[in-house]
Amino acid sequence: MIGIKSIASYVPASGLDNYAQGAKFEKDEEFILGKIGSAFLPRKDPAQETSDLCVEAANALFANNPQLDRQSIDVLIVVTQNGDEEGLPHTSAIVQDKLGLSTNVAAFDISLGCSGYVYGIYAIKGFMEAAGLKNGLLITADPYSKIVDPEDRNTTMLFGDAATATWMGEDATWQLGKAKFGTDGSGAPHLKVTDGVFYMNGRQVFNFALLKVPAHLHELLNESGLTSQDVDAFCIHQGSAAIVDAVARRFEGEPEKFIKDMVETGNTVSSSIPLLLEKHMFDSNWKRVAISGFGVGLSWGSAIIHRP
Amino acid sequence: MIGIKSIASYVPASGLDNYAQGAKFEKDEEFILGKIGSAFLPRKDPAQETSDLCVEAANALFANNPQLDRQSIDVLIVVTQNGDEEGLPHTSAIVQDKLGLSTNVAAFDISLGCSGYVYGIYAIKGFMEAAGLKNGLLITADPYSKIVDPEDRNTTMLFGDAATATWMGEDATWQLGKAKFGTDGSGAPHLKVTDGVFYMNGRQVFNFALLKVPAHLHELLNESGLTSQDVDAFCIHQGSAAIVDAVARRFEGEPEKFIKDMVETGNTVSSSIPLLLEKHMFDSNWKRVAISGFGVGLSWGSAIIHRP
Repeated sequence: MIGIKSIASYVPASGLDNYAQGAKFEKDEEFILGKIGSAFLPRKDPAQETSDLCVEAANALFANNPQLDRQSIDVLIVVTQNGDEEGLPHTSAIVQDKLGLSTNVAAFDISLGCSGYVYGIYAIKGFMEAAGLKNGLLITADPYSKIVDPEDRNTTMLFGDAATATWMGEDATWQLGKAKFGTDGSGAPHLKVTDGVFYMNGRQVFNFALLKVPAHLHELLNESGLTSQDVDAFCIHQGSAAIVDAVARRFEGEPEKFIKDMVETGNTVSSSIPLLLEKHMFDSNWKRVAISGFGVGLSWGSAIIHRP
Repeated sequence: MIGIKSIASYVPASGLDNYAQGAKFEKDEEFILGKIGSAFLPRKDPAQETSDLCVEAANALFANNPQLDRQSIDVLIVVTQNGDEEGLPHTSAIVQDKLGLSTNVAAFDISLGCSGYVYGIYAIKGFMEAAGLKNGLLITADPYSKIVDPEDRNTTMLFGDAATATWMGEDATWQLGKAKFGTDGSGAPHLKVTDGVFYMNGRQVFNFALLKVPAHLHELLNESGLTSQDVDAFCIHQGSAAIVDAVARRFEGEPEKFIKDMVETGNTVSSSIPLLLEKHMFDSNWKRVAISGFGVGLSWGSAIIHRP
């Protein structure tokens, strides 16, 4: 069974002091830390392309896993909605070349936002099993600094740039259990790019998340024959401190199990869940973790991952 | 086993007389029919969005298959590099809403060009099997009329707009056999969009296809323990009449089995293979078909599909 073997990441060292940015919009430190959740927002160098962030994360993964020969990678999926080029070609092809992977690699991009990692692990596992492939790289990289207007108080204090790389293969330390997905395109206008600038209706997105995510997690647990006592941690998309806190409260079951860790990263879109897993899961004694991503589309996905 | 149950399509009725277009560039009818391969190039109405083409193809599929309740669709993948919006949201979310599908649908876009259908059928089958889903829609829609410069003689005589919808599920009439994939991002600059306009280095793409595709098909057959005698038809991407003819000759094995059918459609990108399958495969007595897509990325994929 194909599962998650390792996760690595790239978070740019430079970025924005979010307290200073908050002051510009007359937001105090309590708001920045308590509601937004992030004191620092990493920003890629303007000369770095999305593919460069992917390469940094993948090279960190190769460095952490010397037993993984990059020539053995046979599938590469990049989850992004802010790729290098305008529509075509796909960013994963550029990453194949920059990483020096074999030309025998299957590569494509998945267009999804904050739900992308949950979809992505099932998409790559399924593709590998359907096509008989052995070593997969699932990369997330959605640098919103390319599209966020620094004068838009609704978005500029939220998003951070980052990329993650997940090695998928046999004999994995974490297996994929049951998953559930959802889409409501009637909410598509709440998160969109027009003339190169990102717009978000924060209130609508907050209400959507609060309405959907706790109920979705309960359905997932019920259909898996589990309760929250069986889950060691909930690693949900780090949209903001306020949304993680609100989902945890509304879920009504051990809110302390909801991991919140975005002080130094901001909302990194599809990278937020793998960043949590990388930092908190692999060295833990957790046996079972629930993940949930939600956002652009509107789109949501929740899953149970567990040790074999 | 999830397989291909049905395929439907939408080809706009209006479009360009390619002989007239050829005359503008001093190309005669022999060139247009013999080298380009298309007398007519369908063009969507400027008011039609990519999602509208998807909806037309999906509605044709529902009309052809009254036993398929649209509320039973639980996954929707759109293969496109020319979606409705700028990067986000994904087109599949918009299609979910326009089709009136359940919000329990898993939806995402795959960014691939002319290789997209071969990748797409394995991606949706794998995702469905990994996530336990039952009825999938794989839609291709990549209207190049949005990006082709009508004054560019290298591209404007080639591409036609179309969309296809494939129903994937259990008890299918066609099953997916062995597949092989490849990517060479060093060739990414040969097909790309800059400032909204598509550029193609036709000679490089032709050479790439001729170098890769016949060899790739031979490898696929060898690794499947098959020869060309075991395959009833080769349905490869209809890049142009010249490329289909050249691949068939270079393959050196029953060139008459290579289906060529683009006179009324042009190069429809990821829709070209499913258009062939819809028109020629379902009512045939074929038992085994080889498919191969190649293009943007550079990216290629070949597979055997067969009756159970």
